[in-house]
Amino acid sequence: MTGASALGPGNEFERIRRILARLGSKATGVGDDCAILADGQGSLVLSTDLSLEQVHFRTDWLSLQEIGWRAAAGALSDLAAEGARAVGILVSVGVPAGAAETAPVEVMAGAGDAAASVGGVVLGGDLSRAEQWIVNVTVIGRAMRPVTRAGAGAGDELWVTGRLGGARAALTAWLRGEAPAAQAREAFAHPVPRLEAGQRLAAAGATAMIDLSDGLGGDAGHLAAASAQALDIDLALLPLHPDVAVAATAEGVSAAEFAGRGGEDYELLVALPPAFTAAEAARLARETGVPLTRIGTVKTGAGVRFHEGGTEVRLTGFDHFA
Amino acid sequence: MTGASALGPGNEFERIRRILARLGSKATGVGDDCAILADGQGSLVLSTDLSLEQVHFRTDWLSLQEIGWRAAAGALSDLAAEGARAVGILVSVGVPAGAAETAPVEVMAGAGDAAASVGGVVLGGDLSRAEQWIVNVTVIGRAMRPVTRAGAGAGDELWVTGRLGGARAALTAWLRGEAPAAQAREAFAHPVPRLEAGQRLAAAGATAMIDLSDGLGGDAGHLAAASAQALDIDLALLPLHPDVAVAATAEGVSAAEFAGRGGEDYELLVALPPAFTAAEAARLARETGVPLTRIGTVKTGAGVRFHEGGTEVRLTGFDHFA
Repeated sequence: MTGASALGPGNEFERIRRILARLGSKATGVGDDCAILADGQGSLVLSTDLSLEQVHFRTDWLSLQEIGWRAAAGALSDLAAEGARAVGILVSVGVPAGAAETAPVEVMAGAGDAAASVGGVVLGGDLSRAEQWIVNVTVIGRAMRPVTRAGAGAGDELWVTGRLGGARAALTAWLRGEAPAAQAREAFAHPVPRLEAGQRLAAAGATAMIDLSDGLGGDAGHLAAASAQALDIDLALLPLHPDVAVAATAEGVSAAEFAGRGGEDYELLVALPPAFTAAEAARLARETGVPLTRIGTVKTGAGVRFHEGGTEVRLTGFDHFA
Repeated sequence: MTGASALGPGNEFERIRRILARLGSKATGVGDDCAILADGQGSLVLSTDLSLEQVHFRTDWLSLQEIGWRAAAGALSDLAAEGARAVGILVSVGVPAGAAETAPVEVMAGAGDAAASVGGVVLGGDLSRAEQWIVNVTVIGRAMRPVTRAGAGAGDELWVTGRLGGARAALTAWLRGEAPAAQAREAFAHPVPRLEAGQRLAAAGATAMIDLSDGLGGDAGHLAAASAQALDIDLALLPLHPDVAVAATAEGVSAAEFAGRGGEDYELLVALPPAFTAAEAARLARETGVPLTRIGTVKTGAGVRFHEGGTEVRLTGFDHFA
């Protein structure tokens, strides 16, 4: 587990640093995707995620079931980043006045579907009336050897699962008042937590892993800081969601920069030793159905250097709290 | 673990029944104070609790630290009801616009203090901006032999920890626009989760246990339903918080009825075999500093019969969702 000093920059992280300073010995293990509790059978891994209407989603963008799925999938993604399997989830739902009697049932059903999709169950929950839709999901998983953000070594190579930028393509369309393309909408509404790929990558020797919830621009910085190494990432290598090209043009940035700034794809960024071959990556992709693409290298040093066609690019993450 | 059919009446519970019907096999173990996951070393017990400004607390009643303490203590109380020890908590905080930069630190510090008071730590958390103050606390504990709500047998006696009605005395004062008495305010702002007493009661042979978060009127019904037994409770035996008498007079009800309807005392209602003696109760009270009072009996049948001085009293619980 990493400490507060291993968190990257940003307002939210500044707040977390202050909280950890105040809690002192009353907090342990905070600062990775999950808390890790070693016990007799490997480790228990736990994480909690708060999703809020107007901050993380809008009810005119998503159905209630999609809101539940997305909140749970985002939380389950933290288990994927540890190389853990899912045990279950606990779901708290705050329901605004005027919601239909069945509305919280829809949200819970979506969360339950996400848990079931990775072999987990709903273990508990809480309901309350609220000012806005609230979905808090706590995930519980198990891993024999959890993979943290720390542990990447110089010479390791950086890989990413799936294709990036789809969720952001949907988001920017909605924010412009347009309907997103179908596949981009699906990426935002129905992210697939990469638990199987995460476990396979852990077994393949992953030295560090993080899920891309804040976007590559932010999360690569967390992995670099936690591992106390530099990352060198070639944006030209990023696997792009098919709707990114059009969305990036509308925003006036390069497709790779658009995808690198996009949060909430819930793909995995993973460091693997150089012994992990392209053939192994191809096999893993074939067997899990999830593409795996090499995008850079771990080097001695600090921070993340993003470049595209030889030019340095400054990429920041996505800060919900800002 | 009990199923949905073992939940008592009330709007919130009707909603939970619908959710469980919809989730089907995607939910397990829901319906007790905690989810119970058996593993190599006894069981892991888990619960999640959503506390919201305007619903569960107001910022003009409590300090931010008290808001954090109370949210965590209420969740930890679910571990007490299983006879579990605390491992840790995960805390999500939603922060309204305009809150001071240090405000979430205060809330987290209060939650961390509550966890530390029972030997637990903060294992993780999440922060977001929000429309209202939100504190969701997930608790993780361990028990060799968790005590559920089911298991009370005819002939068992019913006991309650602490003194009841203090939190409600504070609440009714605030709702009348008055300042509550100091001890009543303390009961509301700073409830003490009964983890030590819960573990001692489990070791003493408790057959069923529940924490009084919805009030005796509601929670006794849950224990009766889960155990498939009737409960006979003599309100004249209730241990009353010292500020109840005055508060009950102001509301025009008997002190015992006032206390029996009061939610959020976070004391324990426990069924113990008749072999558990008054001398053992006195010793447990002396060693833990928590009073333990016999208030009734478990009988064959269904439902809860409350009476006071020979007269039946109809007591309902406290439904946040109503």
